Amino acid sequence: MYPEDGFRELDRHECLRLLAKAAVGRVVYTRHALPAVLPVNFGLDDEGAVLLRTSAASELARAIDGSVVAFEVDEVDAVAHSGWSVVVTGRATVVTDPAAHARLRPIVPRSWVPSPDEVFVRVAPELVSGRELVGGRTMYGLNLSA
Amino acid sequence: MYPEDGFRELDRHECLRLLAKAAVGRVVYTRHALPAVLPVNFGLDDEGAVLLRTSAASELARAIDGSVVAFEVDEVDAVAHSGWSVVVTGRATVVTDPAAHARLRPIVPRSWVPSPDEVFVRVAPELVSGRELVGGRTMYGLNLSA
Repeated sequence: MYPEDGFRELDRHECLRLLAKAAVGRVVYTRHALPAVLPVNFGLDDEGAVLLRTSAASELARAIDGSVVAFEVDEVDAVAHSGWSVVVTGRATVVTDPAAHARLRPIVPRSWVPSPDEVFVRVAPELVSGRELVGGRTMYGLNLSA
Repeated sequence: MYPEDGFRELDRHECLRLLAKAAVGRVVYTRHALPAVLPVNFGLDDEGAVLLRTSAASELARAIDGSVVAFEVDEVDAVAHSGWSVVVTGRATVVTDPAAHARLRPIVPRSWVPSPDEVFVRVAPELVSGRELVGGRTMYGLNLSA
């Protein structure tokens, strides 16, 4: 299927399954014209959109609303030299519709730093890509079939 | 020192100490005008510059040479809601000087996907920032004093 010690591209279905198993990912965006990255917890909707909660007044909400961002999740075994990473790339939008708010509340985990002016941010799954690195000697730590 | 359930900013010394303990981080850059992110292993020099090995022909080397990138490392405990993240932001440069090559060889770990045309990339530590989130109930998984 793939050469030893090489990367294997993951298809959209595999990517979404790995995303669904993760609790924390990283939002990659632009802040003051510089690349920026922030770990956050998240949820997924049925279409594979990434859903975050944050304060409406947060720098993150202001920086990414309306912009294309990347959202990355990975699991890497530094000993076995194996692992995978998945990236969702798409436009981030602060959700303002009250009906959407009610729908998202149960599926998006609470922010670890709760705030009174919490908003949801949706990252559209316009591009979903991923790759797997299988270590030369072992697949320890990597279980894509589970 | 810091409010419960809130973030604490890490100083440069703490950031560099956490970076030195990590084996894998993520390069954040721009690819075809879109945000991109890639997990990689890395080394650090005495000044806190991040050092990577990659193929000279790789998309990564071509995309980041001469550009400002971010390099992120984190450790997050999704159960305890605690963890830290550190970001080095600065210009990435493919190292072409043979003397520098010889100096870097022992301190930069080998790429997990070795290639015959390997080059070193240095990310200058122009901006080093980090933050720590201490969970409400426990600091399990987070040991900044070690």
